[in-house]
Amino acid sequence: MRASQFFLPTLKETPAEAELISHQLLLRGGFIRRLASGLYTWLPLGLRVLRKVEGVVREEMERAGAQEVLMPVVQPAELWQESGRWELYGPELLRLKDRHQRDFCLGPTHEEVISDLARREIRSYRQLPLNLYQVQTKFRDEIRPRFGLMRAREFIMKDAYSFHIDQDSLRATYQEMYDAYRNIFTRLGLEFRAVDADTGAIGGKASHEFHVLADSGEDAIVHCSACDYAANQELARSRPLLDSSDPLLPAEQRATPGIRTVEDQAKVLGISPAQVVKSLLVFADDKPTLLLLRGDDELNLIKAARVLDADTLRLASAEETRELLGVPFGFLGPKDLPAPLPIVADQRVLVLRNFSTGANIGGQHWLHLNWERDLPRPQAADLRNVQVGDACPHCATGSLGIRRGIEVGHVFQLGTRYSEKLGVRVLNEAGKEQVVLMGCYGIGVSRIVAAAVEQNFDERGICWPATMAPFDVGIVAIQAKKSPTVLAAAEAMMARLEAKGLQVFLDDRDERPGVQFATMDLIGLPHRLVISEKTLAQNLWEYRGRRDSENHLISEAEVLSILQGEPR
Amino acid sequence: MRASQFFLPTLKETPAEAELISHQLLLRGGFIRRLASGLYTWLPLGLRVLRKVEGVVREEMERAGAQEVLMPVVQPAELWQESGRWELYGPELLRLKDRHQRDFCLGPTHEEVISDLARREIRSYRQLPLNLYQVQTKFRDEIRPRFGLMRAREFIMKDAYSFHIDQDSLRATYQEMYDAYRNIFTRLGLEFRAVDADTGAIGGKASHEFHVLADSGEDAIVHCSACDYAANQELARSRPLLDSSDPLLPAEQRATPGIRTVEDQAKVLGISPAQVVKSLLVFADDKPTLLLLRGDDELNLIKAARVLDADTLRLASAEETRELLGVPFGFLGPKDLPAPLPIVADQRVLVLRNFSTGANIGGQHWLHLNWERDLPRPQAADLRNVQVGDACPHCATGSLGIRRGIEVGHVFQLGTRYSEKLGVRVLNEAGKEQVVLMGCYGIGVSRIVAAAVEQNFDERGICWPATMAPFDVGIVAIQAKKSPTVLAAAEAMMARLEAKGLQVFLDDRDERPGVQFATMDLIGLPHRLVISEKTLAQNLWEYRGRRDSENHLISEAEVLSILQGEPR
Repeated sequence: MRASQFFLPTLKETPAEAELISHQLLLRGGFIRRLASGLYTWLPLGLRVLRKVEGVVREEMERAGAQEVLMPVVQPAELWQESGRWELYGPELLRLKDRHQRDFCLGPTHEEVISDLARREIRSYRQLPLNLYQVQTKFRDEIRPRFGLMRAREFIMKDAYSFHIDQDSLRATYQEMYDAYRNIFTRLGLEFRAVDADTGAIGGKASHEFHVLADSGEDAIVHCSACDYAANQELARSRPLLDSSDPLLPAEQRATPGIRTVEDQAKVLGISPAQVVKSLLVFADDKPTLLLLRGDDELNLIKAARVLDADTLRLASAEETRELLGVPFGFLGPKDLPAPLPIVADQRVLVLRNFSTGANIGGQHWLHLNWERDLPRPQAADLRNVQVGDACPHCATGSLGIRRGIEVGHVFQLGTRYSEKLGVRVLNEAGKEQVVLMGCYGIGVSRIVAAAVEQNFDERGICWPATMAPFDVGIVAIQAKKSPTVLAAAEAMMARLEAKGLQVFLDDRDERPGVQFATMDLIGLPHRLVISEKTLAQNLWEYRGRRDSENHLISEAEVLSILQGEPR
Repeated sequence: MRASQFFLPTLKETPAEAELISHQLLLRGGFIRRLASGLYTWLPLGLRVLRKVEGVVREEMERAGAQEVLMPVVQPAELWQESGRWELYGPELLRLKDRHQRDFCLGPTHEEVISDLARREIRSYRQLPLNLYQVQTKFRDEIRPRFGLMRAREFIMKDAYSFHIDQDSLRATYQEMYDAYRNIFTRLGLEFRAVDADTGAIGGKASHEFHVLADSGEDAIVHCSACDYAANQELARSRPLLDSSDPLLPAEQRATPGIRTVEDQAKVLGISPAQVVKSLLVFADDKPTLLLLRGDDELNLIKAARVLDADTLRLASAEETRELLGVPFGFLGPKDLPAPLPIVADQRVLVLRNFSTGANIGGQHWLHLNWERDLPRPQAADLRNVQVGDACPHCATGSLGIRRGIEVGHVFQLGTRYSEKLGVRVLNEAGKEQVVLMGCYGIGVSRIVAAAVEQNFDERGICWPATMAPFDVGIVAIQAKKSPTVLAAAEAMMARLEAKGLQVFLDDRDERPGVQFATMDLIGLPHRLVISEKTLAQNLWEYRGRRDSENHLISEAEVLSILQGEPR
């Protein structure tokens, strides 16, 4: 493709509307344009990237035995009423009426439609398992669409739905999809993590999120340095500490006037913050409870709410604490509580020896308390945020790190959640009717394009992973309009590379070299070749990989050998 | 692909909802399923056909220099208000409100959105011409969606829009698109006609429709036997007759009591219906006018309305005729009209000699009237429907035939209709701002699938043109579950054909041969190979082309040679 014939409206200035780097660079590079809030047009360059992602997704889905279908964007309300989501789904579900005043919605997801198809077409366990997918336009009416493709209202998703006669079959397909997703993100050249999103107590159903790692990610992803373990920080666990074997010291009450923080307390008492036990009064659905954490740990409200089986959880204020227990803030402790409250301790608190707590008297703290000897062991639970350096809960050797992640995929064992409500039943081997089990598997195809940029850019523009690049190679022909020999050499090279199956973008525009280089860097092709009268005279090409810091003058044979090795 | 692993829910019965043969066969063959009125899900087999059509469309668009983009389905009302179509477009435009109560619509077409893109991104004539296209989901809220894919509410369209600095450039791109459309329909193996849809007096802008010829088509297409001329019957012309050289006979008035029809009149007077002149009283926007046609011709109301520059045109009733002229129905004539009315005659009437008309007296007709001698020549115009056998208006030798057609494509020179309203302006060579010219070019991608079936079926099912077939070859393995050798031979053949790039559908199901044959005929693959223990023993394959009437027992070498010749 020649730049002179390609619709590539690049921008010099960063558009004010764009906060995220991917949004800025995709606008500046002429990949996308905004039509209205959360609605984007894919320009030719951007569509090429999108199609490459779609291509990899399709190949891996087919390889895993999924079959492609295409369902309508517009869905009848009746199905959503059957599943109960017409009422449950918030205003993100864009509802509309047709000319006959019948209710419809724009599909944000297709569980209802696929379940309707399945209940009409599947009669027997012999037709199972079945895994159907589509690559399709979806709509979610975000309240504040932001960040370009990252949180658009209209977007492109690959969604797959599988149907099974039993849990073993569901598990097998779930694993196939999990593996397919790993293959997809690996082939796309993205650094990613499959994150355990096991909802544990709530459903017991398996679920994993796939996150592209990038500093701008909305989610904190905890991951092991040695094994595959990764989890959302909200859910991440770590290996509990071993019991300490320190000799027990005699407990003593100390005057600690004016102390407000764990750090003050540790300093005044000459201990480490890890030996301080924080006592946090919380209201779990209005029920007061005392939570205990190590001084150097942070409360994880989501874990705590789940442990206490509470819909809402909040910290008590100083006033509420004084009112309920008569103790000033900062001097609470589990020993001799003025009122009988449930107490739950983080598991790391229960292995402490010689710890310090508030004494439930203003200006007084305990030092060298020990469980059993000085106070009873409370209920233990995992209440804390894991921290960098914690031991991995899965493997023996790894320690945990924390990265930011952008969710680009989600696999989920739905069980009978939709098939029960919509009546997706088949005859089983015994000839009896049985509700089928379902799995669902989503990939944010258009979001991947943005996530890839968040992970792959520098101060000059995008650095596309090879598989996603809109073209494989860019050729900059210097002053091509004035030098027919330069243009001819560039065209010959383009033809040679295209014959090898490479996609080439030839900048033959009548622009200054600086403008040409800036464009090429901005749009982020993996390889750049420059030809000018000077290099032509030497019979050499100036080559630079997009992430290289220097140019290399090389022969045509070397050019072909470098680009030969390029994976397609 | 193996049938045992492919989601192919075929139906034995014809669904009651389906009137058209394409709708019936696409449902029965497991290509599509209905979700709701006018909304269809593409099943795996149907999607394969759709993708093949899309593939050919994309290749020819790219070859013609168009660049692919992807615009949103959901469009802001503001743009439609700017173009004036928010009010003009009827209820087929599905309007909706987002959560912030802002108005949007589901795009039935994208002139507004592309014009908005162009006015933001194009600054100079140097960026023109530009031709952008997309393959995308569209929505038209049909009042009575019918005929399956033929008139669905949600459908897939290829729409292209071109931008130009002048009419020459528009004309050149229009011709490229016209040629690309011919290539597309030719490659798809469809019998089609490019139909002149020149709106003549109304706009003077060039426009062609592309129709797939099929008996079930909604449009009557007039076409020449010798040249490329084709037109919608509403607009079709024919070569006027030459003046007759018959000797003039003396006019006489004859008593013709009780005569009601042209046929009666001709019989009683001993002349041919071609010598009868019908006099039709019409109201053109409430203005009475007398139209004259030959007895064997039919009035074309659309042509007549255009000639009379009328928005509405209707025939007068017997009562109105008697009231206005005092003449009973059937005895009207242009000679000595009782009231002064404008008279317009079809051009074929004006070359008649010795014709017969009503005498404006009940029970009386004129015989052997002649223009000038007996009555003045009225205004001449083209008022009639062309008929089979008429002379072609374009070439010297051809005669006209009439076929039914399904519109699958439309190319149109829009001129400045949208660019003026939306302000798509560029600087021209003289540095002055100028409104650009636009063309638009649509193809009903999903409709093509239905139209192809309407043109290619028999009593057993679909006969796909090779380029559109979901698979190239079907292999029926007889009793494969019971004969491992048959299955192994079928699989080996599949592997050999796939290695040649052919797409193979292997029916390895545990079904009776009759069911296997019926399925294969229904889904309409171009080539069928059957293998059984019997043919295997002879080392032969039973081959049948989908349109063949007989099987052929052939060797593997012959199989490979037949399928070798298959265009991909």
